[in-house]
Amino acid sequence: MKGAFFKAWSFLKKAWELGVDDPRKVIHCLKVGVALTIVSLFYYMRPLYEGLGGTSMWAIMTVVVIFEYTVGATVCKCLNRATGTLLAGFLAVGVHWIASQSGENFEPVVVGVSVFLLASAATFSRFIPVIKARFDYGAMIFILTFSLVSVSGYRVEKLFYLARQRLSTIIIGISICVVITTLICPIWAGEELHHLITRNMDKLANSLDCCAVQYFDSSGGTNSSEKEFEKKLQGYKCVMNSKATEETMAGFAIWEPAHGRFSFQHPWNQYVKIGASMRDCAYGIEALSSCLISENQGPDLIKKHLSDLCLRVSTTSSSVIRELATNINTMRKSVKLDFLIEEMNISVKELQDKLKSLPGILIPPPGQEVEQCENDNESELILTAIPIPLAEVIPIATFALLLIEIEARVEGIVDA
Amino acid sequence: MKGAFFKAWSFLKKAWELGVDDPRKVIHCLKVGVALTIVSLFYYMRPLYEGLGGTSMWAIMTVVVIFEYTVGATVCKCLNRATGTLLAGFLAVGVHWIASQSGENFEPVVVGVSVFLLASAATFSRFIPVIKARFDYGAMIFILTFSLVSVSGYRVEKLFYLARQRLSTIIIGISICVVITTLICPIWAGEELHHLITRNMDKLANSLDCCAVQYFDSSGGTNSSEKEFEKKLQGYKCVMNSKATEETMAGFAIWEPAHGRFSFQHPWNQYVKIGASMRDCAYGIEALSSCLISENQGPDLIKKHLSDLCLRVSTTSSSVIRELATNINTMRKSVKLDFLIEEMNISVKELQDKLKSLPGILIPPPGQEVEQCENDNESELILTAIPIPLAEVIPIATFALLLIEIEARVEGIVDA
Repeated sequence: MKGAFFKAWSFLKKAWELGVDDPRKVIHCLKVGVALTIVSLFYYMRPLYEGLGGTSMWAIMTVVVIFEYTVGATVCKCLNRATGTLLAGFLAVGVHWIASQSGENFEPVVVGVSVFLLASAATFSRFIPVIKARFDYGAMIFILTFSLVSVSGYRVEKLFYLARQRLSTIIIGISICVVITTLICPIWAGEELHHLITRNMDKLANSLDCCAVQYFDSSGGTNSSEKEFEKKLQGYKCVMNSKATEETMAGFAIWEPAHGRFSFQHPWNQYVKIGASMRDCAYGIEALSSCLISENQGPDLIKKHLSDLCLRVSTTSSSVIRELATNINTMRKSVKLDFLIEEMNISVKELQDKLKSLPGILIPPPGQEVEQCENDNESELILTAIPIPLAEVIPIATFALLLIEIEARVEGIVDA
Repeated sequence: MKGAFFKAWSFLKKAWELGVDDPRKVIHCLKVGVALTIVSLFYYMRPLYEGLGGTSMWAIMTVVVIFEYTVGATVCKCLNRATGTLLAGFLAVGVHWIASQSGENFEPVVVGVSVFLLASAATFSRFIPVIKARFDYGAMIFILTFSLVSVSGYRVEKLFYLARQRLSTIIIGISICVVITTLICPIWAGEELHHLITRNMDKLANSLDCCAVQYFDSSGGTNSSEKEFEKKLQGYKCVMNSKATEETMAGFAIWEPAHGRFSFQHPWNQYVKIGASMRDCAYGIEALSSCLISENQGPDLIKKHLSDLCLRVSTTSSSVIRELATNINTMRKSVKLDFLIEEMNISVKELQDKLKSLPGILIPPPGQEVEQCENDNESELILTAIPIPLAEVIPIATFALLLIEIEARVEGIVDA
């Protein structure tokens, strides 16, 4: 009894934290409530009841099903629903006409066969990737409307009236949804995507920094902030798993009208590309961090020798990422970015030079520490070598990619 | 005109290929058609028309909305729909009773406020991760049913009759769906997951092989099969992006009854864990393949020196993965697996030893090729070193993980 109460309490607490964490979610819930209450008015008010009452449940259903978290998703669903309903309605009327011409005995056969064929075809179309991405919901609505209208047409005998009624209620539902989502605290998919990308960039930069610091700092670090440190270090994992989110958001963002700083034909696809190169970058960090937990570490001698330059590479790289994030935020290419990239390239070059001179340092003093060197030589070279080429090769290739793309994107914005 | 025709033709061709590629998708479409046609019977047949006709649209709607590709998904949606409807129905009746007790003026107010509050609360609950994963659809149905029943209750005045009718139609729809999905060529989410995992394992093994071969084979390879080779090499990318699919499938598989070789309480979560370690493995391969395209390659001398052992590490590793795949397929731990793991560990050990002896080989002959070595020494060491520690450290750590898990899973199956 007490356990159940405690469980419920912790559940409520979690829910409360979720609400405090992102108040827009709470606002979204209130918006759904408002929309539903408004729709209910169509049922309460007598004059409207006469006109729409019987099918006002369609309006309620439309609101419940269509109301999504972001504007883009809502608009996308609205268009899908409207197109699906219209198309299915016309087809169903056509089929009904053919059925009524073919005699009483064949009427159910014609209707049944047409339902079977069209439902199968529409279901199949949902497997085709292009349609699945954009019109999945529309295909479902198509099946639903078609089977409802054609089957009910056989009985109710007032097909056109029914179709008109259904359309008008759906239009009412859709317009209420669109007005409420866009006017009351709108949550734009495009803006969410924008923030997701910049937030992920910051996370990447933090992870890269932490990774380098932890690798070269063998003192154990400050214990007090260790948990936070660990959290930062794991930040790149978010980037790795954000593919699906980015793609759906970009898909929804296409449907959104111009809002805030974003124009209608904003190049959303660039965000997806940037996301992809960020994921490449995150894979690089993943490889780096696997060196952190590897059991055979290089000796401190070599580590110290390289730590300054490695840390510089990582800090300059992460500052390039951060600058990119602020550039995307302000949607303007800053001069500082070019400067930082230049600096990063210089530090990478220096590190490469240092690496080339490394064996020279190791081999010369053969008398002094030869035994220790003999044993650890290779593992030293290998293991200190790992973080560097990765810190160089992968992120830099990725940065180059990122930069080309960001420039393309900035140009795209300038054009638009 | 011709262009449009050509486009339509290529679209149809693609769709046809999709169908040929996976005939189960076509079967699924036919199943949907059959289910819908059966439901339509409730409308055609007179006796049923009297009983259910007016609300038989609910049955159609249930079939259209609930019928999913896999059995698990369908059952999950059915349970969601039934629970949501029941819960909302009881609550709506309760609210309606309170409203009817509170006088004519307050009736719409009570109903409106309750709709607003409950719709907001249910929408909010959909943001809570636990509920989103399992009961997202149920929450939507809850909102829908509650608002429909409580609003219509105010007008129609035959609430219990309506609720009973709706429930019975939904039960009819649900039972038709369940019977058809489970009896006619069932597609089990669990089996799909099972095949996905083994297929991904094969892809991983292929990628690993190709990666190693391409790195050490500078002759350019056989041009005829280059495209296929490239395809195999890219196989690991599928593994990286399959997280969401695996998780949803595992979520659906829980709901499925015992089928084929899988018992009811099959440890599906183990599949998710195996998937996760496979992704780790894939990140390792990603790092490896970035060495392939890196512009500064080590000289052939060192490459040749190490190629035999590296190739052996990669082939033994990939054969371990393949053996794991067949083991999962047969659900039995074979003796061959232990043997292969032993072999892999031996080859890794040998490679490590060889690496330790490397600088000894490079340093001794200082007279002969010292200049060439001086220049390339470090880059050689670094670059040939990269594929090895990665081929060692990451996959092996992952293999160990995989093995522990596969053993746990095999034990789980033995227990079940």
